[in-house]
Amino acid sequence: MVRPKKNKTTTSPKGFFAAGLHCGIKESGKYDLGLLACPTGAKAAAVFTTNKIVSAAVTICKKHFKSPGISAVIVNSGNANACTGHKGIENAVAMCRKTAQELKIENRNVLVASTGIIGEQLPIKTIAAGISKAAAKISASSKAGLDFAKAIMTTDTKPKQAVRQMEISGSKVTIAGTVKGAGMIAPNMATTLCFITTDAAISKPLLASALKTAIDDSLNRLTVDGHQSTNDTAIVLASGLAGNRPITSRCPRYRKFANVLGELCEDLARQMALDAEGATRMFKVVVEGAATKADAAKASRAIADYPLVKCAVHGGDPNWGRIICAAGSVGVKLNAEKLSCKIGPMTVFQNGVPKKFDAAKASKIISQRDHTIAVNLGAGSASDFCYGCDLSAEYVRINADYHT
Amino acid sequence: MVRPKKNKTTTSPKGFFAAGLHCGIKESGKYDLGLLACPTGAKAAAVFTTNKIVSAAVTICKKHFKSPGISAVIVNSGNANACTGHKGIENAVAMCRKTAQELKIENRNVLVASTGIIGEQLPIKTIAAGISKAAAKISASSKAGLDFAKAIMTTDTKPKQAVRQMEISGSKVTIAGTVKGAGMIAPNMATTLCFITTDAAISKPLLASALKTAIDDSLNRLTVDGHQSTNDTAIVLASGLAGNRPITSRCPRYRKFANVLGELCEDLARQMALDAEGATRMFKVVVEGAATKADAAKASRAIADYPLVKCAVHGGDPNWGRIICAAGSVGVKLNAEKLSCKIGPMTVFQNGVPKKFDAAKASKIISQRDHTIAVNLGAGSASDFCYGCDLSAEYVRINADYHT
Repeated sequence: MVRPKKNKTTTSPKGFFAAGLHCGIKESGKYDLGLLACPTGAKAAAVFTTNKIVSAAVTICKKHFKSPGISAVIVNSGNANACTGHKGIENAVAMCRKTAQELKIENRNVLVASTGIIGEQLPIKTIAAGISKAAAKISASSKAGLDFAKAIMTTDTKPKQAVRQMEISGSKVTIAGTVKGAGMIAPNMATTLCFITTDAAISKPLLASALKTAIDDSLNRLTVDGHQSTNDTAIVLASGLAGNRPITSRCPRYRKFANVLGELCEDLARQMALDAEGATRMFKVVVEGAATKADAAKASRAIADYPLVKCAVHGGDPNWGRIICAAGSVGVKLNAEKLSCKIGPMTVFQNGVPKKFDAAKASKIISQRDHTIAVNLGAGSASDFCYGCDLSAEYVRINADYHT
Repeated sequence: MVRPKKNKTTTSPKGFFAAGLHCGIKESGKYDLGLLACPTGAKAAAVFTTNKIVSAAVTICKKHFKSPGISAVIVNSGNANACTGHKGIENAVAMCRKTAQELKIENRNVLVASTGIIGEQLPIKTIAAGISKAAAKISASSKAGLDFAKAIMTTDTKPKQAVRQMEISGSKVTIAGTVKGAGMIAPNMATTLCFITTDAAISKPLLASALKTAIDDSLNRLTVDGHQSTNDTAIVLASGLAGNRPITSRCPRYRKFANVLGELCEDLARQMALDAEGATRMFKVVVEGAATKADAAKASRAIADYPLVKCAVHGGDPNWGRIICAAGSVGVKLNAEKLSCKIGPMTVFQNGVPKKFDAAKASKIISQRDHTIAVNLGAGSASDFCYGCDLSAEYVRINADYHT
């Protein structure tokens, strides 16, 4: 696996073109419309939010992504097109139709995604004009890929991209991706908007399987504020132009591809955690010694979600009491006399009793931009993990001021 | 039901004495030790945290409260005596023993509670000296009751007390209570420390039943940061000195007592919400049209717990999209085409479509110190409710700076 030096964007794999621009949904200047195109047609796989309220874009995208050859993805930011009724559905369809017209492809080969404020109708004329402009300027340049990454941002402070390369049956295969955060993020969902491109030749079911595993172990392990949004969508498009021997079974080539895709998604998840609303640092919670994997997942999420733990991390405070309290609060099996906790490599609580530790050193660890908190429940041998970020006053500022 | 004008504290009902003082757990001056006494012996009922990690105080209290005649409750703040192993248990026992010695009663008739930082051993000698002082100064005055209310505070900004009086079979019966918050509070647990005194003559099982119902509909409906602590304890003591005909069955007298106890607990819960860490306002979430009561409870809690809703309330922003998003995120049955939302009396979302509303007026409602958010899931006829409070930068400041 190699990280290519130059084009680190979704236009890096062969066959992909992109554009991003300001069309007029957001205040002047800020990019709010992105177009990703694969004129030769791509195999697609996707994961969507499990929220029972889904945006119009998700409804239409779920319908279209089953088409055999996806040629474009149209995305707007600044407006979620959620809770917008039949008019919202019409607008999502109109976004696909306009994109199809401009690119001379079929409606059903266009995927659509939206992110932003809930409950307002899209300014569809403004968007239609933007789609014409975007279609006219699509390019395979790294700048075009970056523009696309910028266009999907909401409260993100920077575009988030990653790329990986590998050799499969003598051919260079590239995978690239971009995500947007940065609130309404919790595990067990597709988590926000994520677009991945690859030139691998791979069958549709295996692409779907690799995506599901990669998302499960990365974006789905991240919690920012414990809630999934109405619009979460992760899409992977495979152009098949890399020239590799097609991956059609769970062979070593598949495993290689799946592993690299997993790594890419972990990279994106970490970038998202670090750019979560108001976040200044991220952490990984590892829960071991659980009776079941489900218990380990539940406890790790409870810890990462707990506002008091998030505040402690923000304050650089190795307050393991809150960590233990969170682990105990979700009904998982644990042995109070074997319960232990580590901050980084330092054991701070062991077999149910506080352990003397260097508080200054522990504070330094928990103040790092990226660190690990580990809890052993002493109740079995299962383990799981989760990513979290700190809770800052800035998070409150961002979300108390966000316009309705 | 009457609210008495003068003594509004836990020493208001006949038979109760109290004291509160600074013994030395907290920094100088702040009260950190409280003693409540009922020399004639009281019937007791209690509800405890459902966290799997419980403090040493909870462990001992659970054992002692089954005694037929409870004569005292000893409480310290500033240290939770949780995650402290065998030594912690010894210290909780020592607190009871010292109190029993001073008051010349039996160990098993003393209840104990602790609140504060997790994972540090109690300064037991300091506390023992404090218990001697407290025992020497117990009084039935309203000042003594207020001192007790102050002694149980941690990050609370003010003591929280309530009192109610009623007539039962010609006798005046008084119920009084005090609670401390103000973080680690979520529904479905005994919620923080709560001490209720009454002079009603009532059987132990009926006292327990009335307490459970009252707490279920009040303190258990409050969520501040979605987590129950290791120490939550609610205790009611009944001295039986009011002179009423003893309540021994679910007769109208029981219902009267239970209703007034419920009202008192609601009063305390509202005071807690308004004094939650960093909170500037509280709100009630009512979920109607649910398929089951469990669904309604789950959805109402999801909304009240959701940081983005809490931030919107803090910012006075009628952002109903976040409310709907939270309701959809917890897997409850809903009909997206019948889903509706009200902010105070204003309908802002109806049958799955945004409704034009006066945003300035809605903002005014959501900026009130106490308001109601209502959601109709359109999936049935069950309903439930929950109390929440706003999330402020002050919450982060308090909890990022809290010492370890």
